[in-house]
Amino acid sequence: MTVNALPLPLGFRTAGLHCGVKKDPQLFDLSLFVSDKPATAAGVFTTNLVHGAPVKVSRRRVPRGTARGVVINSGNSNACTGDQGIADAEWMTAEVATKLGCAADDVLVCSTGVIGRFLPKDKLAAGIPKVVDALAASDGAFLDAARGIMTTDTFPKQATRVGSLGGKPVRISGVCKGAAMIAPNMATMLSVILTDVALTPAEADACLRHAVDRSFNCISVEGHMSTSDTVILLASGASGARLESANDRETFQGWLDGVAADLAQLIIRDAEGADHEIEIDVRGLRTRADAYRIAKAVADSPLVKTAITGADPNWGRIVSAVGYAGVPLAESDITLRLNGLLLYQSGTPTPFNAAEVSAGIRNNRRVHIDLEFPLGSESVRFWTCDLTAEYVRLNADYTT
Amino acid sequence: MTVNALPLPLGFRTAGLHCGVKKDPQLFDLSLFVSDKPATAAGVFTTNLVHGAPVKVSRRRVPRGTARGVVINSGNSNACTGDQGIADAEWMTAEVATKLGCAADDVLVCSTGVIGRFLPKDKLAAGIPKVVDALAASDGAFLDAARGIMTTDTFPKQATRVGSLGGKPVRISGVCKGAAMIAPNMATMLSVILTDVALTPAEADACLRHAVDRSFNCISVEGHMSTSDTVILLASGASGARLESANDRETFQGWLDGVAADLAQLIIRDAEGADHEIEIDVRGLRTRADAYRIAKAVADSPLVKTAITGADPNWGRIVSAVGYAGVPLAESDITLRLNGLLLYQSGTPTPFNAAEVSAGIRNNRRVHIDLEFPLGSESVRFWTCDLTAEYVRLNADYTT
Repeated sequence: MTVNALPLPLGFRTAGLHCGVKKDPQLFDLSLFVSDKPATAAGVFTTNLVHGAPVKVSRRRVPRGTARGVVINSGNSNACTGDQGIADAEWMTAEVATKLGCAADDVLVCSTGVIGRFLPKDKLAAGIPKVVDALAASDGAFLDAARGIMTTDTFPKQATRVGSLGGKPVRISGVCKGAAMIAPNMATMLSVILTDVALTPAEADACLRHAVDRSFNCISVEGHMSTSDTVILLASGASGARLESANDRETFQGWLDGVAADLAQLIIRDAEGADHEIEIDVRGLRTRADAYRIAKAVADSPLVKTAITGADPNWGRIVSAVGYAGVPLAESDITLRLNGLLLYQSGTPTPFNAAEVSAGIRNNRRVHIDLEFPLGSESVRFWTCDLTAEYVRLNADYTT
Repeated sequence: MTVNALPLPLGFRTAGLHCGVKKDPQLFDLSLFVSDKPATAAGVFTTNLVHGAPVKVSRRRVPRGTARGVVINSGNSNACTGDQGIADAEWMTAEVATKLGCAADDVLVCSTGVIGRFLPKDKLAAGIPKVVDALAASDGAFLDAARGIMTTDTFPKQATRVGSLGGKPVRISGVCKGAAMIAPNMATMLSVILTDVALTPAEADACLRHAVDRSFNCISVEGHMSTSDTVILLASGASGARLESANDRETFQGWLDGVAADLAQLIIRDAEGADHEIEIDVRGLRTRADAYRIAKAVADSPLVKTAITGADPNWGRIVSAVGYAGVPLAESDITLRLNGLLLYQSGTPTPFNAAEVSAGIRNNRRVHIDLEFPLGSESVRFWTCDLTAEYVRLNADYTT
């Protein structure tokens, strides 16, 4: 996959390099995202009660509303490492802060990789000064930073929206790394999104939560929640643009939602071991939460996933997953289309050409499941992937 | 696997044969369990809102408190078949009732197999008189009935307890068929348990629910809930024994729990594609529901399952599944042992010999996960299996 560097928003410098957390010297394992001046900061974190030390540290600092930057290492998640892990995460931020000339509290931190091992502090102590020295306000440096957060990802993930607000050009660009998927040690989803629009802390928090609810919270690989999932938004304000009107807010939200959804879909696209990307639309429910529960029940069912792997138009697996999603409904409320073809209408199977549907699944990497209900007007779009023997091989053959 | 016929309780006759629902004439596809006189009946059914017509029919009849028998076909689940399916299920019971000389309401019905196809009534119309004629009060006929409910099972499943109550010999014997596992069309768990102890309908209902909560509700293959799961208890009273005292009740409950737990574990043992049976003990919680949620989160995690497949002592996957189970707790509340070896103690990893733990998993079909908490005195024992490439192959390669 050819990767083009995407635009780095104004007011930021970034860097990524290899410092030795990973053994292979070709692989980057340390990234830094820095705002020239204190940026408005927001963050959304895993809700797993078992979570990494960096999550504890960053979650405590985000409510301050501003930050100078985010330091991220890959190759070691610093999770399940007790008090020592927290001290190590705080130490990472202090090392960065000393070089930047700010307080440690101004630096956020993420780590991703193997669980339950202490950080190799000697490698990081040598690497942090180098990554600070490498900081640059260039698209190439932004791509380097996208590389430094990768674990089992096969390509760096970036997405962007460029537009104008009040006549001023603005940029929103994000990077992320892949999710649980194949992850031999339960890889984490991490994302850093940068914008040069000026936001208040309240605006940043509200906009980020809206975007995450419609992107990273709408993807699922195998339903196992990571200990380290983190999405951070930094707004430098360097474009000079701010959200002056309801129209500006709506425009900006649309761009941010788009960046987050693009990044989330890149994670699904890079699901190692997966043969198909599955998009699930659930429409016509009383509440968005109901639609979400149904989408997630279908997405997380190994029987649905393996049906897609086998190009099997086995609608019974999909309809029965709807039935145990915990949403009050009757069978006659369910209408199912697969790749646009009606298979089940208001609780009754419809005749269809199984060979044709099967060929449609087999010959396309993308599969669309559409579930329609007559219960209300709320909907959700959700993305997942199929479950292949290769997934099992990748996850089973790794030995700690 | 050699199968010995187990004792049929007194007062019952059973049969199983091939009538043509399945193509292969070697495979039985129709079973009948009949009590000579009206038996006390209890039933527990799937909670999936999408469920088969036989579930609707039997669930409506069980509250009457008595039944003459249960007719079961395999090869077609009569699920997602609308009003025609309900009429067909009622027709099956009427055909049996005519031959037995009772009311259709006295007959319960189950079906298991492919979803969304109408029953082949011509085959069943010819088969039902034959299966009634074949009824016999013999252990061999009981094994035949166990064979007639099989779908993807590789061996018939029976379990028994024989004892005495008030000086009278009594028997509790059950049959079941396997769960979702590999089931190309989402196989169902069905079980019929017969006893010659006399029970009131209230006793039968309470005892069956207690047993099911500690057996069939404590197994999981891939977390996909079937449309047809059914467990039925029939008590003929033909032993002349009844539950005269609290001690009798406790003794009987212990036997019934044992039969149900044996049957549930046979389902896990017959998980095609599985290399390991996993027993999960969760101890020291505030409520049994909390312990259950944790056990199920661990059991249903594909990352935990594939770790066992790969003989990987990857405790991070287990501990992180605990964290998202929805039970309020801290990391420091978690202590984990794998096959008796301490891996994680009160939130801190403990040093262990990874090669030794890995060999212990690789060289034994059974794996024991023990999770201990300091939060209370409630516990749950749960059974599941690992997730192999063979599971995926079996579930993906089937085409409707």
